[in-house]
Amino acid sequence: MSKKIGIADTMFARVDMFKIVKKALDDSMESGIKLERYTVPGVKDLPVACKILLQEKNCDICVALGMPGDKSIDKTCAHEASQGLIHTQLLTNKHIIEVFVHLDEGKNDKELFEIVKNRTYDHTMNAVALLRNSLQKFAGKGIRQGKASVGGIR
Amino acid sequence: MSKKIGIADTMFARVDMFKIVKKALDDSMESGIKLERYTVPGVKDLPVACKILLQEKNCDICVALGMPGDKSIDKTCAHEASQGLIHTQLLTNKHIIEVFVHLDEGKNDKELFEIVKNRTYDHTMNAVALLRNSLQKFAGKGIRQGKASVGGIR
Amino acid sequence: MSKKIGIADTMFARVDMFKIVKKALDDSMESGIKLERYTVPGVKDLPVACKILLQEKNCDICVALGMPGDKSIDKTCAHEASQGLIHTQLLTNKHIIEVFVHLDEGKNDKELFEIVKNRTYDHTMNAVALLRNSLQKFAGKGIRQGKASVGGIR
Amino acid sequence: MSKKIGIADTMFARVDMFKIVKKALDDSMESGIKLERYTVPGVKDLPVACKILLQEKNCDICVALGMPGDKSIDKTCAHEASQGLIHTQLLTNKHIIEVFVHLDEGKNDKELFEIVKNRTYDHTMNAVALLRNSLQKFAGKGIRQGKASVGGIR
Amino acid sequence: MSKKIGIADTMFARVDMFKIVKKALDDSMESGIKLERYTVPGVKDLPVACKILLQEKNCDICVALGMPGDKSIDKTCAHEASQGLIHTQLLTNKHIIEVFVHLDEGKNDKELFEIVKNRTYDHTMNAVALLRNSLQKFAGKGIRQGKASVGGIR
Repeated sequence: MSKKIGIADTMFARVDMFKIVKKALDDSMESGIKLERYTVPGVKDLPVACKILLQEKNCDICVALGMPGDKSIDKTCAHEASQGLIHTQLLTNKHIIEVFVHLDEGKNDKELFEIVKNRTYDHTMNAVALLRNSLQKFAGKGIRQGKASVGGIR
Repeated sequence: MSKKIGIADTMFARVDMFKIVKKALDDSMESGIKLERYTVPGVKDLPVACKILLQEKNCDICVALGMPGDKSIDKTCAHEASQGLIHTQLLTNKHIIEVFVHLDEGKNDKELFEIVKNRTYDHTMNAVALLRNSLQKFAGKGIRQGKASVGGIR
Repeated sequence: MSKKIGIADTMFARVDMFKIVKKALDDSMESGIKLERYTVPGVKDLPVACKILLQEKNCDICVALGMPGDKSIDKTCAHEASQGLIHTQLLTNKHIIEVFVHLDEGKNDKELFEIVKNRTYDHTMNAVALLRNSLQKFAGKGIRQGKASVGGIR
Repeated sequence: MSKKIGIADTMFARVDMFKIVKKALDDSMESGIKLERYTVPGVKDLPVACKILLQEKNCDICVALGMPGDKSIDKTCAHEASQGLIHTQLLTNKHIIEVFVHLDEGKNDKELFEIVKNRTYDHTMNAVALLRNSLQKFAGKGIRQGKASVGGIR
Repeated sequence: MSKKIGIADTMFARVDMFKIVKKALDDSMESGIKLERYTVPGVKDLPVACKILLQEKNCDICVALGMPGDKSIDKTCAHEASQGLIHTQLLTNKHIIEVFVHLDEGKNDKELFEIVKNRTYDHTMNAVALLRNSLQKFAGKGIRQGKASVGGIR
């Protein structure tokens, strides 16, 4: 598969999420996938970074990596960033997989790191699957990224 | 009626909502309706999926299926997804029938499943009716999808 | 005045608001106004319905009729619908008069019906006046639609 | 200065804010400024009114006058109107000075009227200054419109 | 580096943030950077100011400086401004570094001034680094602007 994935990450995040993306891509055994990385200060800078990756750098899909803070203002920032990421997708007709882990999702640094690692890893695999449009077999199964899946009903 | 309906669904949902859509379409006895399915990870990926279905796959209408979680962040995600779905409609001049069932709408899995089944079924029928522009006779009747209708006043 | 007014209404509403619009137009004694009606399931389907009425059916103005529910999720839906209606106006340079009556605005069905009747009637008159750009004499008077006006200061 | 200012006002407002704009413009001693007035029912109708003033009536700048109510739903309406006014500016590359006074900003009608008068007057002067791009000398001074200014730090 | 940075600031802010930007640029020892300044009344006027700087004044990047108030309505204004700034970036494919300091972020004027000084200084450096696309080495380090950085995990 000759495709290019854009990875946008932030200085604000407390984990090198890009490294996890690279590990997942290695594990996926996909050959021919190129990476383009773009680092910005915080999550609100991610939408235009992804727009540039998708439109000017010809990426086929983006993964937007961020770790919003735990205060009320940070929740608002994350919300604005998410709205911008959806808008960007509508302007480019390409997917952006948002991988946000809020700093208050884990009880401590260790738990937080596990969530970041799992969610980033799983969503990178989703991005690869979306490029192949092969997620249909997983539909309606209650699958979660970064935490235990809840399973389907009936 | 030679029309094409796009169905966007998610891995996150706990019910195979697509199966219910198919059942409804079979029951509708409409002939000549083609289906195009597109599975994405979660509800925030639905807007661009619908945009691609409507613009690139030439669907005449979309049904966007999702089951947002019960936490505060999930409510925000669902809100962002809904804004994106409305934006997509304005960019394409075509309808997207949003079928979201929140995980806290039912008291237990059984009740939740009933809501999912009824709302998905009824809204699929609405999508077919919109393609025929034949909903006028139901206007102002207090009709609900997935729960009991409340009825009209006077 | 040879104009065309688009009326978008919903199955979800509990009152036949369209009938009230027609009554108001009859009372306005305007001749030459044509009506185009478009019924959709709920308020979130109104923005694209109005966009189609304004762009494809060549309406000069729209009246968007809806009765959002009384739960928190319904308030969010109404908010999303309102944002979409404003967006639609900016994309078409035409007015959409939003006539929303929330199900918790009245103490009982009778009071609710009165609000629906008055607000729909008055806003239909506003739509006609906007087509004539003749609202200037009412500016700054504290005028309300559906409830008693509060009056001006000084 | 040969410029045209668009003034959009509402029937809902309880003060004739347009009159205050005119007084300010007279006091500004600017010659050659033309006015175009557009009255709409409420604040949610202001965005498209301003879009029409800026695009179709060739105004160079707009002043959007409104007095949102004091209930929760009114706050939401004002928020939607503000979002629409910002969107309008981005679509036209022209400024819209929003002059909103909420009905609960004053303890009584008299105080409310003072706020309306001062904010409308001062913002009209700002609009004139923006047309001349001459606000630089006031930057970072903690200047408020309608209430006492808080002053700068250091 | 022959680049042009647009600086949009407000009358509402209580600190001359532009002066801090200039100090940072001097310290950065970058030669050939041109500045274009644009002063507006408040934060809601910043999006269109930045759009004009990026599109009409050919700036390569913008820094948007503002100090939103501490009341509920001010939080809403800041949110609307942030949404507008993200939208502007998507319309221009250029970055706007938002430097907002809320009036309630500091316990007193002295602390507030320190936050303003540090955040404005650091974000100006980020803007310069973005022009060079050289932020990659700082990714995932938990870096904050205006307050102590929290550091990375593992």
